[in-house]
Amino acid sequence: MNFKTYRESLGENGLRIAKAAEEVSGETGICIAVAPQAADLFRVASSVGIPVFSQHVDPEEPGAHTGSITPESLKEAGVSGAILNHSERRLRVDLIEVAVRRCSSLGLLTCVCANTPLAGRAVASFNPDVVAVEPPELIGSGISVSKARPEVVMDAVHLIKGVSGGMHVLCGAGITSGKDVSAAIKLGAEGVLVASGIVKVPEPKKALMDLAEHSIPD
Amino acid sequence: MNFKTYRESLGENGLRIAKAAEEVSGETGICIAVAPQAADLFRVASSVGIPVFSQHVDPEEPGAHTGSITPESLKEAGVSGAILNHSERRLRVDLIEVAVRRCSSLGLLTCVCANTPLAGRAVASFNPDVVAVEPPELIGSGISVSKARPEVVMDAVHLIKGVSGGMHVLCGAGITSGKDVSAAIKLGAEGVLVASGIVKVPEPKKALMDLAEHSIPD
Amino acid sequence: MNFKTYRESLGENGLRIAKAAEEVSGETGICIAVAPQAADLFRVASSVGIPVFSQHVDPEEPGAHTGSITPESLKEAGVSGAILNHSERRLRVDLIEVAVRRCSSLGLLTCVCANTPLAGRAVASFNPDVVAVEPPELIGSGISVSKARPEVVMDAVHLIKGVSGGMHVLCGAGITSGKDVSAAIKLGAEGVLVASGIVKVPEPKKALMDLAEHSIPD
Amino acid sequence: MNFKTYRESLGENGLRIAKAAEEVSGETGICIAVAPQAADLFRVASSVGIPVFSQHVDPEEPGAHTGSITPESLKEAGVSGAILNHSERRLRVDLIEVAVRRCSSLGLLTCVCANTPLAGRAVASFNPDVVAVEPPELIGSGISVSKARPEVVMDAVHLIKGVSGGMHVLCGAGITSGKDVSAAIKLGAEGVLVASGIVKVPEPKKALMDLAEHSIPD
Repeated sequence: MNFKTYRESLGENGLRIAKAAEEVSGETGICIAVAPQAADLFRVASSVGIPVFSQHVDPEEPGAHTGSITPESLKEAGVSGAILNHSERRLRVDLIEVAVRRCSSLGLLTCVCANTPLAGRAVASFNPDVVAVEPPELIGSGISVSKARPEVVMDAVHLIKGVSGGMHVLCGAGITSGKDVSAAIKLGAEGVLVASGIVKVPEPKKALMDLAEHSIPD
Repeated sequence: MNFKTYRESLGENGLRIAKAAEEVSGETGICIAVAPQAADLFRVASSVGIPVFSQHVDPEEPGAHTGSITPESLKEAGVSGAILNHSERRLRVDLIEVAVRRCSSLGLLTCVCANTPLAGRAVASFNPDVVAVEPPELIGSGISVSKARPEVVMDAVHLIKGVSGGMHVLCGAGITSGKDVSAAIKLGAEGVLVASGIVKVPEPKKALMDLAEHSIPD
Repeated sequence: MNFKTYRESLGENGLRIAKAAEEVSGETGICIAVAPQAADLFRVASSVGIPVFSQHVDPEEPGAHTGSITPESLKEAGVSGAILNHSERRLRVDLIEVAVRRCSSLGLLTCVCANTPLAGRAVASFNPDVVAVEPPELIGSGISVSKARPEVVMDAVHLIKGVSGGMHVLCGAGITSGKDVSAAIKLGAEGVLVASGIVKVPEPKKALMDLAEHSIPD
Repeated sequence: MNFKTYRESLGENGLRIAKAAEEVSGETGICIAVAPQAADLFRVASSVGIPVFSQHVDPEEPGAHTGSITPESLKEAGVSGAILNHSERRLRVDLIEVAVRRCSSLGLLTCVCANTPLAGRAVASFNPDVVAVEPPELIGSGISVSKARPEVVMDAVHLIKGVSGGMHVLCGAGITSGKDVSAAIKLGAEGVLVASGIVKVPEPKKALMDLAEHSIPD
């Protein structure tokens, strides 16, 4: 669950949603990770038992790199991994390679985003733990990728698993309900990326529970 | 004091240096601000009573801006302000204007860096609280701007105060000792930006005390 | 006149518009410069007698800088100057300084764009030959800055001339008719930046003539 | 042959080298393409019969994209293709996909660079005509990739051909002599990328002839 920079998931609000996610995860056994803003990472990671991801990570080494979000700083803050190359924060192809390698060497998980199945196969080349495919035009639209563009999910799964069968494939964009999740799972995705569809609703826990319950294959 | 991404100022190490800075500030009455990495901001800001700055801030509004460091997230983390346009994280001129305006509207201080006196005058146009001029070739060199390039400091003070007399002018690059600070103050600077010269020495508190004692005009 | 990347001003089409501009300039005595795409610069500059500008220039020195548009390459192609920091190609503040200095040293004119009066004052700090202020929200809108936001033009003229009286101030965005130009001149601008309002009309020469005739103060 | 932004390959100098390349190509039957700076593309493409490539291309559509180098402008200038993602001009992964697709649809060839074999496989995902692998630390060094890092060439060929057997694989960095080329061909590369090793020598034609003669497998 990507908190983006929404007011509804900032600071104490974000902590509340992270705790709701922890409860849902505990009750359903479904793995849920949360991705707060950088300045909230320590606060959330030291308060919940589920994986906390950064929304971005820079490849820079420790040193004179003012303003970078280094893998080391994430590790030190108790964070489990990082999202990379989100459609709202695209990266140069060479920097994705270095960032994935540096994160792996520190034991941080990486979830690299891609806007198309071909871009998903491209970033899969760097062996991240997870590749998440999201058509940007559906992000925040409320129209789910798994319903509107099922071929995107299928092609992505096919191409990414073709690079390495062990890589996990997520899909995202427009996902708001359990039905969207079931559809994604049926198409071969192993999970989903969600943001506004959960973060901005009146009862995030209820919405999350709906998603989690539909994540379990029948 | 800019912590950059040095190991010596990350996480618990950074907290220790921040506390040393707090003590030196309390003992000398000199204002010292510390700028940890983004993931450390909450931890440091909730532990010390001196101003804590972010090393960078993005101009984005709350919303769908994955990976951005928003002014709102800094405010929520208890941070006092932000460094902008450091030589290791240069920004587009239009984004500096928006970031300064958004920070000001939230009560966050802004310290905009510049590599030359003309660039200092340029960023002063946006009315930040502080402009810091640092010739990049001297950053991390151990050769202080106030000794090696005194005309840079004088020109910067002259040009920036010409835009607005109320703006504070700092200088930086290569500053390691109290003498460098005295020289800067004599040239018209109101303070200094330091990083490796303090962060990477065996006894940061002692080094800081030397700087602070020389910040007081005779 | 900025050709942008419109089909209507590409290649032979652009050459035709450049020749129309040359005729209008010859008939009215008004200075008109044209800015074709990079790959068209040599073709246009070797065919017309009016100033030809690049739409962008990089600050890089001759050397190993694959893909850069260097000032030397513009000079060699017979180009007179360059637009910098257009709203569709914003630049880092430090790179604007170097690019302006390098162009000046080669005898190339520089026209630096800015989205606001304060940004206009900021870029004026680097002493380009021309500063052009264009509110991005009006670019391509058909609603002229001189009518819709006269205070932007006046503030820009005031602030930029305050840095150096010798700098020329243009305004742009939404300008399509001679009346828009007259209004701009009355507000203190010394000329205008135009693009779609001329490039995309059926008779560019007629439209240009209308603008040129209104550029002469009564 | 990448002209970069060297003085030795600018304007008339570049035209001379392009003509030398044309002669060598005619005499040996080896395909040689030249990549001048953007402002020289029209001049070179209209003077020689060998393929001329741009050093960069932007993915933007015709329209309001000031300063972009569009595929359409290359086509109009008589250019055959474009280098993309050179180590001196790295690109975002999503923009590479769009640029390759847009070039292909206009009949322009694409040569996408990569710094490592994994990055080569990544960009191969977008089906460019050519992938060129160049370890940046050897670029301009005079130490050839085919001698110093043969495993890079072999791994790149293996991984890229694994994505699509029809894709051409070049290698580059530090190549100055015919022996470097023979070594590259033996390792499975189908050609080489050269720059300073030819552009900056006193007799480019002689140096090129040496390379070309060694491009023919025994």
